[in-house]
Amino acid sequence: MNASEFRKRGKEMVDYVANYLEGIEGRQVYPDVEPGYLRPLLPAAAPQEPDTFEDIINDIEKIIMPGAASPACTELETVMMDWLGKMLELPEAFLAGKAGEGGGVIQGSASEATLMALLAARTKVIHRLQAESPELTQAAIVEKLVAYSSDQAHSSVERAGLIGGVKLKAIPSDSNFAMRVSALQEALERDKAAGLIPFFVVATLGTTTCCSFDNLLEVGPICNKEGLWLHIDAAYAGSAFICPEFRHLLNGVEFADSFNFNPHKWLLVNFDCSAMWVKKRADLTGAFRLDPTYLKHSHQDSGFITDYRHWQIPLGRRFRSLKMWFVFRMYGVKGLQAYIRKHVQLSHEFESLVRQDPRFEICAEVTLGLVCFRLKGSNKVNEALLQRINSAKKIHLVPCHLRDKFVLRFAICSRTVESAHVQVAWEHIKEMAADVLQAERK
Amino acid sequence: MNASEFRKRGKEMVDYVANYLEGIEGRQVYPDVEPGYLRPLLPAAAPQEPDTFEDIINDIEKIIMPGAASPACTELETVMMDWLGKMLELPEAFLAGKAGEGGGVIQGSASEATLMALLAARTKVIHRLQAESPELTQAAIVEKLVAYSSDQAHSSVERAGLIGGVKLKAIPSDSNFAMRVSALQEALERDKAAGLIPFFVVATLGTTTCCSFDNLLEVGPICNKEGLWLHIDAAYAGSAFICPEFRHLLNGVEFADSFNFNPHKWLLVNFDCSAMWVKKRADLTGAFRLDPTYLKHSHQDSGFITDYRHWQIPLGRRFRSLKMWFVFRMYGVKGLQAYIRKHVQLSHEFESLVRQDPRFEICAEVTLGLVCFRLKGSNKVNEALLQRINSAKKIHLVPCHLRDKFVLRFAICSRTVESAHVQVAWEHIKEMAADVLQAERK
Ligand SMILES: Cc1ncc(COP(=O)(O)O)c(C=O)c1O
Ligand SMILES: Cc1ncc(COP(=O)(O)O)c(C=O)c1O
Repeated sequence: MNASEFRKRGKEMVDYVANYLEGIEGRQVYPDVEPGYLRPLLPAAAPQEPDTFEDIINDIEKIIMPGAASPACTELETVMMDWLGKMLELPEAFLAGKAGEGGGVIQGSASEATLMALLAARTKVIHRLQAESPELTQAAIVEKLVAYSSDQAHSSVERAGLIGGVKLKAIPSDSNFAMRVSALQEALERDKAAGLIPFFVVATLGTTTCCSFDNLLEVGPICNKEGLWLHIDAAYAGSAFICPEFRHLLNGVEFADSFNFNPHKWLLVNFDCSAMWVKKRADLTGAFRLDPTYLKHSHQDSGFITDYRHWQIPLGRRFRSLKMWFVFRMYGVKGLQAYIRKHVQLSHEFESLVRQDPRFEICAEVTLGLVCFRLKGSNKVNEALLQRINSAKKIHLVPCHLRDKFVLRFAICSRTVESAHVQVAWEHIKEMAADVLQAERK
Repeated sequence: MNASEFRKRGKEMVDYVANYLEGIEGRQVYPDVEPGYLRPLLPAAAPQEPDTFEDIINDIEKIIMPGAASPACTELETVMMDWLGKMLELPEAFLAGKAGEGGGVIQGSASEATLMALLAARTKVIHRLQAESPELTQAAIVEKLVAYSSDQAHSSVERAGLIGGVKLKAIPSDSNFAMRVSALQEALERDKAAGLIPFFVVATLGTTTCCSFDNLLEVGPICNKEGLWLHIDAAYAGSAFICPEFRHLLNGVEFADSFNFNPHKWLLVNFDCSAMWVKKRADLTGAFRLDPTYLKHSHQDSGFITDYRHWQIPLGRRFRSLKMWFVFRMYGVKGLQAYIRKHVQLSHEFESLVRQDPRFEICAEVTLGLVCFRLKGSNKVNEALLQRINSAKKIHLVPCHLRDKFVLRFAICSRTVESAHVQVAWEHIKEMAADVLQAERK
């Protein structure tokens, strides 16, 4: 949508809201629809080609408004999460379908998704062990629980461990910054021998530092064999899996119990929107199911409805699936794929510029929209370079450490980025580098 | 703001956004301002009288845009939480001021605020006990921890206990559905004698079921004496404390470590916006402080800045304080007070209608905008009444149980509610009641 179209549509929406508020007394306080009304009204999958804005708005009146906030808010979410799951070619088991055991939910952040997965896994292992040995207290079990992730995992994993009160062990990643099965297995054996209870593994697809990928095809089977909950954190990279040429990066998802990525990071859905799927809804809702009277309703036990409040930390929820519905339909799957491809192509363009300059090195394989690079030389000179770049305020880079190396990260992430921006940025970086190198020589 | 003003301003905002996006390449990627720039540009407190929309928009350009998302997003939040804290006459210790130890944060929900408080309290007690007895493991401590709330507390408290892995005991409330010190003290003594470790108390001001108030002035001193973290959940009622005539309901807040209410419930701020204050920021941030390289920044240790990601479960944040800024300025404190007063007055109007009808009874003291009532008679007849009312879909009521009584709840909560609505609703309820009573007599 370009700016003039945005002006037109935005103003129509303002009128829509004003009309709604002015006419609100004419509306019913409670919808007439029955739970489950919405899915049959929608296609089974996202459109390949864009729909028009008019079509979408008309559907709001026809499909959403009769279901008002409830049950439309919940049901659109379930269907949108199925649409998105299909775009990613998630295994059927993760979809809600008409009556599946799995399904998706919108969380506010990847941190919450990881925490929910860890809490669900914790409850599950406690129940299993108490069923085997009823004399075990919860505390006696929790004390021995161990979760695992690679040493490249996002800090939110460590935090989930702290909240859950369980140990978290960082598995040393390999030379490509990937978690491999040998290192994981070694840790599992060591911990089991020490009387600890492994229960939860987070595999990262697209690490924050350098967009590396844990080896799911190796790690997944071990998790299944050992009865460990496998959660996949693909916060950034997940969006790319809608492209067939990147889908192989998700191979092994079939071994996972839960999978999460943030459409707000790279799929054009405004912040916040973090998409999480589980194979067994009951595992999530079992983590802390509570039903006081004021939250009871007559459809409670029909099996037809989803109570998302059992899937998340907060109780209240926003209607975030509307954002997904608009984006998926306005771009179409093809438009979204084109968007991802363009970013990946531009990051490779930047990569090759860097590679052509012998003063620089690429520090990690470039797979998606992130390029990790540095001046060949000390950390000090790279820190000076970063400082100079960020002080100039023409572009902004966020650094990371890879092993003991201080590394600059060039991230393609703006909606409107073009090759020209990449070229300008590279010229600018070279200039700053020349200054830094000259200062160093003095 | 009426509908025609909304149309005008809404469209101006659409243009503002479009202009911003069109001109984005002319903007700097990083702001020039220094941390702490914003507070001196704002008044120390919310205005009493409304500001004009023009004034607010002009301030956006002058005050917010130069600080872009960061640090403006964080700094406006700190200042708005101070404004709101002052409206409530919170003790100074809860405000951030220029260099206080306390301060406020916007959470997504009261559930998250309670959870954060419980986690902070858990970490604090673990540290304290381990300092006294270094041989104690975390698990050995957690196993013995006990949290307390009244039996009328919201289910989110129980959930926080489940997540934190600690016991939660429900203290029997008195005949007014309030937690009293005698019952709390009894539980504390019993649990301590059994070798357990009390560490956390949630007092509710304005319970979900019937808007009852725990006795803070009794409970607070005991918590302080026993070194228990006292968290106050005033999710709904908190908004009323901006009126001097309701402020006494908050007396005793000075004993609390943390306080929370939802401006999105009753202070005209759109969902979501849950306001939480703590007396010691370090308690919250200490709960799980983590600093990976990619989240480091040069102002980190200046003491000047607030890293809200340490205050909450998610990492990413929205710019929710803008909503508060607009609402506080567009209504002024007086406008907000008038809004609260009108709702309370209308609920008393409904209460007196109910009291005039001998078939009905009021089931709990009416203090704010909620009226709990029922037909004198069986639960069955009241369930039938609720069912009939909600099936007619003219109004919608959510019931509760008070002890063993099934109770109907009439909640004044719409922005545009007037006396006429209350009268119509009551006529309708009487009609439905007549039908139900007649059916029963047959
Ligand atoms: C791999 C990964 N996991 C988790 C997160 C945390 O995301 P959120 O802010 O949604 O909690 C990030 C954020 O950058 C990430 O890159
Ligand atoms: C007293 C009380 N506490 C907590 C909550 C939960 O609020 P939230 O949805 O913000 O988690 C409610 C919600 O109604 C409430 O009334």
